[in-house]
Amino acid sequence: MKRITNDPASFKEEMVEGFVAAYGRYVKRVPNASGVMAVGSPKPGKVSVIVGGGSGHYPAFCGVVGEGLADGAVIGDIFASPSGEQVYRVTKALDGGAGVLYSYGNYSGDVMHFGMAEMRCRGEGMDVRTVVVTDDVASAPKGRESERRGIAGDFYVFKVAGAAAARGDDLDSVEELARRANAATRTLGLAFGGCTLPGQSEPLFSVEPGTMEVGMGVHGEPGIETSEMLPASGIAKLLVERLLDDAPEGAGSRVAVIMNGLGTTKYEELFVIFRDVGRLLADAGLTVHSPEVGELVTSLDMAGCSLTLMWLDSELEELHDAPAATPAFSRGGLGYAKSATESVAATPVATPDEDAEASFAETTSGGDAVRDGLRRALESVEGAEEELGRLDAVAGDGDHGSGMVRGFRRAVEATEGYGGTAGAVLVRAGAAFSDAAGGASGALYGSAITAFGQGLDANGTDAPGVHRALEDALKAVRSLGGAEVGDKTLVDTLAPFVGAFGESAGSGVPAREAWQSALAAAEAGAASTEDMISARGRAAKLGERSRGSRDPGATSMLYVLRAAGEAIPQEGA
Amino acid sequence: MKRITNDPASFKEEMVEGFVAAYGRYVKRVPNASGVMAVGSPKPGKVSVIVGGGSGHYPAFCGVVGEGLADGAVIGDIFASPSGEQVYRVTKALDGGAGVLYSYGNYSGDVMHFGMAEMRCRGEGMDVRTVVVTDDVASAPKGRESERRGIAGDFYVFKVAGAAAARGDDLDSVEELARRANAATRTLGLAFGGCTLPGQSEPLFSVEPGTMEVGMGVHGEPGIETSEMLPASGIAKLLVERLLDDAPEGAGSRVAVIMNGLGTTKYEELFVIFRDVGRLLADAGLTVHSPEVGELVTSLDMAGCSLTLMWLDSELEELHDAPAATPAFSRGGLGYAKSATESVAATPVATPDEDAEASFAETTSGGDAVRDGLRRALESVEGAEEELGRLDAVAGDGDHGSGMVRGFRRAVEATEGYGGTAGAVLVRAGAAFSDAAGGASGALYGSAITAFGQGLDANGTDAPGVHRALEDALKAVRSLGGAEVGDKTLVDTLAPFVGAFGESAGSGVPAREAWQSALAAAEAGAASTEDMISARGRAAKLGERSRGSRDPGATSMLYVLRAAGEAIPQEGA
Repeated sequence: MKRITNDPASFKEEMVEGFVAAYGRYVKRVPNASGVMAVGSPKPGKVSVIVGGGSGHYPAFCGVVGEGLADGAVIGDIFASPSGEQVYRVTKALDGGAGVLYSYGNYSGDVMHFGMAEMRCRGEGMDVRTVVVTDDVASAPKGRESERRGIAGDFYVFKVAGAAAARGDDLDSVEELARRANAATRTLGLAFGGCTLPGQSEPLFSVEPGTMEVGMGVHGEPGIETSEMLPASGIAKLLVERLLDDAPEGAGSRVAVIMNGLGTTKYEELFVIFRDVGRLLADAGLTVHSPEVGELVTSLDMAGCSLTLMWLDSELEELHDAPAATPAFSRGGLGYAKSATESVAATPVATPDEDAEASFAETTSGGDAVRDGLRRALESVEGAEEELGRLDAVAGDGDHGSGMVRGFRRAVEATEGYGGTAGAVLVRAGAAFSDAAGGASGALYGSAITAFGQGLDANGTDAPGVHRALEDALKAVRSLGGAEVGDKTLVDTLAPFVGAFGESAGSGVPAREAWQSALAAAEAGAASTEDMISARGRAAKLGERSRGSRDPGATSMLYVLRAAGEAIPQEGA
Repeated sequence: MKRITNDPASFKEEMVEGFVAAYGRYVKRVPNASGVMAVGSPKPGKVSVIVGGGSGHYPAFCGVVGEGLADGAVIGDIFASPSGEQVYRVTKALDGGAGVLYSYGNYSGDVMHFGMAEMRCRGEGMDVRTVVVTDDVASAPKGRESERRGIAGDFYVFKVAGAAAARGDDLDSVEELARRANAATRTLGLAFGGCTLPGQSEPLFSVEPGTMEVGMGVHGEPGIETSEMLPASGIAKLLVERLLDDAPEGAGSRVAVIMNGLGTTKYEELFVIFRDVGRLLADAGLTVHSPEVGELVTSLDMAGCSLTLMWLDSELEELHDAPAATPAFSRGGLGYAKSATESVAATPVATPDEDAEASFAETTSGGDAVRDGLRRALESVEGAEEELGRLDAVAGDGDHGSGMVRGFRRAVEATEGYGGTAGAVLVRAGAAFSDAAGGASGALYGSAITAFGQGLDANGTDAPGVHRALEDALKAVRSLGGAEVGDKTLVDTLAPFVGAFGESAGSGVPAREAWQSALAAAEAGAASTEDMISARGRAAKLGERSRGSRDPGATSMLYVLRAAGEAIPQEGA
């Protein structure tokens, strides 16, 4: 893993400088100290909440300094406690005369250095208290909660303390509420892969492939057990069950939830896990309040995640919901719809598809020939699936054949038994095609089919009407894809076909015959895409010439036109 | 890289379900479609801004749906455009009668599918417009801006369009402003390592170790060149120079900035790069406005970053600054101190150290003996550095020797030429020691030295005074570390020493002699820590017994006590 740095020895200092440079609208540097304080702090008569610990956990700790949250953060080196001297300096800078609360995760280095500063400040007459966060259920058994480490639950304790201080509570109250938040909060973490310190070439620790470490700490501290890697649903179940087993005495029925990523396990994955977490909590009779899914306490580039629950009482909930504005976390002001925060169970999850029905033109007759043509086209591309895939693999990702099959299969299904004109059936088929086929081909074919159908409805199904509809289809493809004849795309097949069809139709040839005779022009057009210079993907970078290989879209268009021609009735559609 | 999923085929659907379950306070599911819309939308008479694209880029695109930003997002599979049908359905759901603006990054699949939906909606009489984002300077040369891909600059275009729609602009105006934002925005990205799709065991692409791909796209599209990996300062220079070279026509002097991480390159690293980015922009005469450093457009777990600049005019700045509330990005309301957003150059970066001077007790005499003792202690731990490191490596991280040397070196430096009593010198030395040594030892030793100094000042420097001061030091260590005699720590050395000293002092023995005779008890105590069972780190997990090895702290304490004793004057300090 490459990691960005200049001199690793000055990494922390440069990080703090960059942080303050970026977020000067929220924070300022504490003069002559490794720490930051909120703009406008200290406020005379207001309790200051100071958090801190080692770097490498952003947004913990400096990212949550700002109005309504922490007043300051003391910043240690990567994974190392700040010194007592630095804590002392930040504390002196933030003394507003109403006392200071320290809050940080329970690690011996932090406990000692913050402890030293606390002693020293008390010796100077300041009122300083400490609430150590101990949310990690894996680090000590039930009954020995005070020995536990602090991990992502830090965030809730800081948030509650910060909100209490912001509303003007005195130090006794801020301390009591922070303690209550900590007592109500439980976290369990999982690690899937190690993290690498700046300047190092090897990770700090590693996790055996195919396994995960249950309860591993944010610096790689030993967990409860090594387990085989589980699917997302299994991970959700494990996390929820272990946390509910450890629910605090007298826990209520409302929980705030953090689904936290440690660095390399990303948002999309966290949402997949949260899907089951939310359901399992609801099944357990809990109301999920205002969850956060993201990165609130990280471990550099560690792969892993953690789940945090804070059981709420009405006062914790009020402080949890209170506004805040910090570099990494803001809440409140505009748009925070409190009324919409309730229960995952209440969130309707729509079952996809059907009901868009109403948006299609309602018509009453015909369409059998079109359905026949769609079935023939499906058969044809099924037969050519492998060939089309092979052609596509030269310059693309090799899925053109499978996309065409998916598209026509869905188009056939969507129009089966659908009573409408030829045009209406085609419009429906086009939408279904592009939805199922995906990618550029899905869009191009889908829009061609749709435009062709709209053209037939507008112009009729005799040869001149079909010609105008074909021209509409060609126009749709051109305007969507921007390709012209000679660009080695399906336009090279379709354009000559439409031209030839138009000539026949103009001289009175019926649609079926005009279609058949125009196929020769389509064949010539498809053949002209041989020896293409691919304009797509990596081949383009390499300037590779893909000799002897036709464009897959030009080829599939030929197959489709051939198949469709078979379905045209003797005298118009 | 392990990636979390259930069935990869249903990853996207489960991700959307989890997202809506988590953020129901901001968004709701569009019925029967792969998309989300803001709670409370559509608003009659308000333009709707719809964004979208493939998944795998969170918070792009669904994470920026909410008040003041996008009204809806259409969500494709990982790295794949949503279908035209899905875009159509989301558009129908968000039609508030005042028209719809589509905005998304310039990729052929997205252009086609959104294009299809646009045609279809226009066919139904809706007013739909499109502003495609083309901020990636690496993807086409100057003069061919419209061919460029869209990457992190998406965010600014969405933000400007969303804010314009939110304040009530009509569709013409929203479209024009989005176009203006796009024209004013430039991004360059770097990739250091590939990303892995859910369910895959191999990354989608890889980057040669020791190199970086300049201009690589967010799906691994080819960039401009492969370069050797640069330090953070070189990365900053490269990004800033290339973007300034490509500044838009008529660019002003104020820029909004996004320092964006692609997934695995984390916040701390981004801040280190931003430190130089901010300076270089200021050096170029630009005022940096309200930067964002974080993850706004990701690429699963890709290692890499990008820098985005949007050159501001007064209207773009107003819309940029307007409030927003979405799952992944909120601005405004409480605490957004507009006045504090200016120029990186204006942010004072403190030069560390010195000035904390004032916080030390001002005293006037003595202290030579203490300075002598500190120098002797430094010599002693320098001599024992390797031995202490070896002892520490058995159960810890092997840095005890180097930490002790750092600590005493700084303590000596900090007290050189400092005129104060013995106690005052020790207080100063303790603070310097713990600041420099770091870790638990730094805290324990530092607090012991400080407490000893405070004790001497309070009790005097005759033998009974020294005894009380030693008791204070022992008490400080105990309360900070929580260790008792027998726990195999430095308390095992210090406690018997203090006890023995007290006995001698109680029977009238002067300080120097009492100290010398107490050293035997310290030696016995240090020896008692052999065969310790480590309580720290991995050894604890394994239950390893570390035979024949003394505790490093107990050992170093013995050396320090011996050295200090040599410095005590014949009759009191």
